[in-house]
Amino acid sequence: MGQPQQPDGAAGDKPPLRIGMVGYAFMGAAHSQGWRTVGRVFDLPLRPVLAAICGRDGAAVRAAADRHGWAAAETDWRALVARDDVDLVDICTPGDSHAEIALAALAAGKHVLCEKPLANSVAEAEEMTRAAEEAQKRGQLAMVGFNYRRVPATALARRMIAEGRLGTLRHVRVAYLQDWLVDPQFPLTWRLRKEAAGSGSLGDLGAHIIDLAQYLAGEPLAGVSALTETFVRERPLPAGATSGLSGASTAGTGRVTVDDAALFTGRFVSGALASFEATRYATGRKNSLRIELNGERGSLAFDLERLNELHYHDGTEPGAHAGFRRILVTEPDHPYLDAWWPPGHGLGYEHTFVHQARDLVHAVAEGTRPEPSFADGLQVQRVLAAVEESAEKNSVYTPVA
Amino acid sequence: MGQPQQPDGAAGDKPPLRIGMVGYAFMGAAHSQGWRTVGRVFDLPLRPVLAAICGRDGAAVRAAADRHGWAAAETDWRALVARDDVDLVDICTPGDSHAEIALAALAAGKHVLCEKPLANSVAEAEEMTRAAEEAQKRGQLAMVGFNYRRVPATALARRMIAEGRLGTLRHVRVAYLQDWLVDPQFPLTWRLRKEAAGSGSLGDLGAHIIDLAQYLAGEPLAGVSALTETFVRERPLPAGATSGLSGASTAGTGRVTVDDAALFTGRFVSGALASFEATRYATGRKNSLRIELNGERGSLAFDLERLNELHYHDGTEPGAHAGFRRILVTEPDHPYLDAWWPPGHGLGYEHTFVHQARDLVHAVAEGTRPEPSFADGLQVQRVLAAVEESAEKNSVYTPVA
Amino acid sequence: MGQPQQPDGAAGDKPPLRIGMVGYAFMGAAHSQGWRTVGRVFDLPLRPVLAAICGRDGAAVRAAADRHGWAAAETDWRALVARDDVDLVDICTPGDSHAEIALAALAAGKHVLCEKPLANSVAEAEEMTRAAEEAQKRGQLAMVGFNYRRVPATALARRMIAEGRLGTLRHVRVAYLQDWLVDPQFPLTWRLRKEAAGSGSLGDLGAHIIDLAQYLAGEPLAGVSALTETFVRERPLPAGATSGLSGASTAGTGRVTVDDAALFTGRFVSGALASFEATRYATGRKNSLRIELNGERGSLAFDLERLNELHYHDGTEPGAHAGFRRILVTEPDHPYLDAWWPPGHGLGYEHTFVHQARDLVHAVAEGTRPEPSFADGLQVQRVLAAVEESAEKNSVYTPVA
Amino acid sequence: MGQPQQPDGAAGDKPPLRIGMVGYAFMGAAHSQGWRTVGRVFDLPLRPVLAAICGRDGAAVRAAADRHGWAAAETDWRALVARDDVDLVDICTPGDSHAEIALAALAAGKHVLCEKPLANSVAEAEEMTRAAEEAQKRGQLAMVGFNYRRVPATALARRMIAEGRLGTLRHVRVAYLQDWLVDPQFPLTWRLRKEAAGSGSLGDLGAHIIDLAQYLAGEPLAGVSALTETFVRERPLPAGATSGLSGASTAGTGRVTVDDAALFTGRFVSGALASFEATRYATGRKNSLRIELNGERGSLAFDLERLNELHYHDGTEPGAHAGFRRILVTEPDHPYLDAWWPPGHGLGYEHTFVHQARDLVHAVAEGTRPEPSFADGLQVQRVLAAVEESAEKNSVYTPVA
Repeated sequence: MGQPQQPDGAAGDKPPLRIGMVGYAFMGAAHSQGWRTVGRVFDLPLRPVLAAICGRDGAAVRAAADRHGWAAAETDWRALVARDDVDLVDICTPGDSHAEIALAALAAGKHVLCEKPLANSVAEAEEMTRAAEEAQKRGQLAMVGFNYRRVPATALARRMIAEGRLGTLRHVRVAYLQDWLVDPQFPLTWRLRKEAAGSGSLGDLGAHIIDLAQYLAGEPLAGVSALTETFVRERPLPAGATSGLSGASTAGTGRVTVDDAALFTGRFVSGALASFEATRYATGRKNSLRIELNGERGSLAFDLERLNELHYHDGTEPGAHAGFRRILVTEPDHPYLDAWWPPGHGLGYEHTFVHQARDLVHAVAEGTRPEPSFADGLQVQRVLAAVEESAEKNSVYTPVA
Repeated sequence: MGQPQQPDGAAGDKPPLRIGMVGYAFMGAAHSQGWRTVGRVFDLPLRPVLAAICGRDGAAVRAAADRHGWAAAETDWRALVARDDVDLVDICTPGDSHAEIALAALAAGKHVLCEKPLANSVAEAEEMTRAAEEAQKRGQLAMVGFNYRRVPATALARRMIAEGRLGTLRHVRVAYLQDWLVDPQFPLTWRLRKEAAGSGSLGDLGAHIIDLAQYLAGEPLAGVSALTETFVRERPLPAGATSGLSGASTAGTGRVTVDDAALFTGRFVSGALASFEATRYATGRKNSLRIELNGERGSLAFDLERLNELHYHDGTEPGAHAGFRRILVTEPDHPYLDAWWPPGHGLGYEHTFVHQARDLVHAVAEGTRPEPSFADGLQVQRVLAAVEESAEKNSVYTPVA
Repeated sequence: MGQPQQPDGAAGDKPPLRIGMVGYAFMGAAHSQGWRTVGRVFDLPLRPVLAAICGRDGAAVRAAADRHGWAAAETDWRALVARDDVDLVDICTPGDSHAEIALAALAAGKHVLCEKPLANSVAEAEEMTRAAEEAQKRGQLAMVGFNYRRVPATALARRMIAEGRLGTLRHVRVAYLQDWLVDPQFPLTWRLRKEAAGSGSLGDLGAHIIDLAQYLAGEPLAGVSALTETFVRERPLPAGATSGLSGASTAGTGRVTVDDAALFTGRFVSGALASFEATRYATGRKNSLRIELNGERGSLAFDLERLNELHYHDGTEPGAHAGFRRILVTEPDHPYLDAWWPPGHGLGYEHTFVHQARDLVHAVAEGTRPEPSFADGLQVQRVLAAVEESAEKNSVYTPVA
Repeated sequence: MGQPQQPDGAAGDKPPLRIGMVGYAFMGAAHSQGWRTVGRVFDLPLRPVLAAICGRDGAAVRAAADRHGWAAAETDWRALVARDDVDLVDICTPGDSHAEIALAALAAGKHVLCEKPLANSVAEAEEMTRAAEEAQKRGQLAMVGFNYRRVPATALARRMIAEGRLGTLRHVRVAYLQDWLVDPQFPLTWRLRKEAAGSGSLGDLGAHIIDLAQYLAGEPLAGVSALTETFVRERPLPAGATSGLSGASTAGTGRVTVDDAALFTGRFVSGALASFEATRYATGRKNSLRIELNGERGSLAFDLERLNELHYHDGTEPGAHAGFRRILVTEPDHPYLDAWWPPGHGLGYEHTFVHQARDLVHAVAEGTRPEPSFADGLQVQRVLAAVEESAEKNSVYTPVA
């Protein structure tokens, strides 16, 4: 560090892919880890370079650059987007700035990776998707950061479903349960203010599970019926700068303007039924994203709190020996695993960002459309909008536009 | 058997409680096991006597009487209800006959235990509840058979919630998942015909989880938003007599007139949110009634497939040592357990019927109102009706009457 | 109760099998439940009759007879053995009286069911086995009560192993973990005195797991290397009559003369390796009998605390989809399950005694040798003796005689 | 990469700790990941620099240097040890070369991190420990790479035990189960030859669990009684270069000269009993290192296949609410976790090497003796020797020297 970390040689001969990242909080740290590690583990056609990082606070962003290994630091995202030595802009800011930055980056000829949710409104997401489609024609790629598609276990689930192992899908039940708002004294961080976060559990956790459910099912949601709730409507104001997820508080209070929890049922276009729940009030559940899919031929179940495992029931087996099996997703023929450790040596949360980087690097090198695309992000946004509309309209069943 | 099974003595001196049971299929067998066993395990104020059993097929009901230990057999429920040697009528028939039998039994001066759901309509349930209220004044008791309140783990959960261990309730999520209809060739038994069963998954499984959720929460549901679905609308006709749950089929087909699955969200009167799912299409889930409750101070979780376990998270503990603990509900100070085996020697499904019998015998002896009462059954019926109404009205949020 | 419990009829036409039981504590209650229930659930060739029960305390045994449904009570086991109306003597006393009672019962022409361990010494067990072999020639059967062979999940495991699903066996690891002696103030009941109990954890828990391991493996242990320990050597004397598993204590103390824990490794005759542990000091483990078998083609795992489940890994499957599957052993084609409840409606500990009764009734009716036979009990006794010998001889590997 | 990865600045001002690593296979890749990542996540007093890597095959080691980010490559470990720009030698070779390299590195004034097992014999380990003690006086540190001490869950377990939460220890049961040798056609890699690997499951897996058990118990083993076995004695020869854990094979066969499995029981110096099992034949168990400790006041259990979880039973709680709780070891006040992700976002296997690097960097900067020291490694070696001696002497109980 502070030194060249590799001799001249093979990797040095690969063309670089120079990354410029906007934002350096939780997601920034995770993406940095992904970009730094990916070339050490996977054989890549391009060589990712951590070119520049951007944040509004000069001292903080320089410290982040130093900490995370970025060569340069910027305090204005427009300057970052304008840099000649940046090929790809990685957007890790809150949702209210995604559209503006992504549109500028695409206009500047950059590839874009944008954190989820794609935007804070359908209109923004539509504009971004249109811009991404145009950019694609120019060879620029745009991807949205639904990293939970890249847990090896969920990627395996998708592969198994695509192979037909579930048959006709009947049920998808999904919950994303956290508990960091249970304490009514937790302060009013940006994640609890609509103008910054767009929505609460819905946009943060709900966006993840909507995307994951549609990805695994291999089809979009057709309509939803929703309830949302804000349990604690007044919270202490945060004292000074905070991350979204923690922070000290002051004596004053402010109004929570996002949902604390969102529940909705729905139908996929094939007629399969879906149940969704996103909450930050599930005491004792720290990061429990649970998804189960039941089809005519089999079932799959996953829980992010045990991310190296996928549970599979093969409904075509004789009943006497059938049961949900725990697949430890650490075998060389599991997705992404040939590059990692021997069987049974599990991966962690952060590796989803390594895998995201791997797939994006391949897409850029090969000119293929990355998944999830901005169009996928827009589809999630439309579901989120339908959820909000249904919740406002007394839960009436609301088609996804 | 066929011989007196105990010498004259203490138990013989207790006043008898003479049971007459209508129905002898799955529920009849389970109730028989409960009545036969309860006095062998618990110290009871009354001595249950299996006086008479009733079914329409004379040979079959005599065989059932013989198998299950009933002293007499009847083929007309009116005759059973009229017997002088019957103190309590135990109704184990499909839901379409509950009201008529229960009303007649109450009119005949009998105590009544009625299987769930209480009735096939709110109107019937209201009439039954009124009759039960009147009967209560005459010292006759009426109870509805929501046996899952009497799993030791759910009874412990209720006790812990009543002690305040969860604090303000935020979330209740419940699913009752079975898979016996996944095969489209499963025949059209009475459970799939609306005129006999009233409804499908909703009335069968949904009734259980509505009651259990309201019982554990200690409060009623205020309103619901629902989706229901019939995935397979045409099924082979059954060949000859079948139980509801199995049977051979013939060449002809008939129309399924009940729901295959029902999903609904809702609000409890306190504002806690609820999520419900009842289905017979969850491949690989055999009898998975899962309930989780999250409160400001703690959480509880239960799965009927592991019925000797209750999972508890104490949210007031220091985070470093907190976690969901698996309480093996087999300790002497757990509900019902002082009468059973040493710690760790688990009970089974059927013991819920022993416990139900125990509690009802005590209520009769002591003249106390049994729980769940017909009023509790009516409340479930009202939720079921609200679910059906919401499902018919495009999932609009529908208050429970 | 106190009344005939069934009308004359089919069951009444079956020949009776009249049981006389010695002992009425924990095992007596469990066996009573088995005998009372078996004919209500299974189609049997004989009709079990609870003829007489025996215990030394007249009032207590009469209360037990009344409670558990026995027609007569005796205070001298010799009188019970001599009764003309007893066909089968069921021995539920501590191990020090097994040999005497069993030998007398066989001499009196009775069938015998003897609780485990078969005896307190190899010599006793040998004599009992010789007597049982002679009796078998006269048509009298003798069975030892290793009831854990009759958990549906262990019976399924045996069936799968017999089918060759594990292939060449490599490892058997077994532990039986309880914790009721952790408290040093727990009193010195009969289970802690060598003269009554023979040994401690070893004879009580160890006997169970030795039998189960040999039964599942389908082969005997060839030799063992053992450690035993008594952690708490002095305990308060019990106050008055106690069961073995609980009781109040007095001011005085006495010496614990049995082992608190026994650990041993061993080899099966095929060369498979085995690891055994039996203890009453595993804090938090209430009745955790865990067994795992690893073979060249697959593995099986079971835990008595979740007795309706068997975990199976099919080693011949492609690695990408392989994993330990949880078989919920409640399907109609699982052992014993066709007579019980629908799938997913689990059984409990006590049902092992119903199944034991079922198999013994069939063996008596059909004249087949019951399993486990006294010879099986003797083999367990020989392993126990080898364990004790090895423990005394500095853990040296000791062949099973 | 191939570019400086950070700007001049804070990190650049920290003194460097220049690492030279010998070996670049599985352990080399894992250590590289640790060294590369540690300064990005933790605040360190020194700045680790990946100075040079060494391996015998020039092209391969240059590729490894490039892949893993090492500045220079060497083909002779003596040259690496002699480099002026190396402060710490990290030994990731098979056990037969540990002693020679470590002694040379210490003699050359370097700090040393040596993979486990410390050596292939007690004599070597003693010499290494003596050298390390001398070096410690000169300010050079020596640490052995028992990385499983640095899983956050095991580190938490150690902290809880040190706090007295288990009280007097009664039982430690440990197994390390893998299955990569089940197939008799798996080739004879270096891990199966005694001259390279020293021993088989025992030295590889057994060393890990001996160290972990002694570390958690906080005391050494006093003696052991052991069985070892080689199930498959003849295996195909590997074709060309292989890693230890995989590879193609040729037509010829060779003799397996190490154990396939090792079982032993033992006593800790306090009198607690221990049970150990190490095997590569546990079909379906990929990397299942399971440890459970039972004490008078509580119990702890861990399984490496679910490495983010620690199970804890608090024996001092009222029985009605007690149970093994699953602590999700991802809270900020859990060991190492304050530097990582929010609660519930789990870590993986590789992070143990990051934590190992973190602790070693601190030890070097602060001049404190690192743990586990070479003396700890020697203690493990002595247990391994006692196990081998006992296995050779018919399992007789053998004191640890």
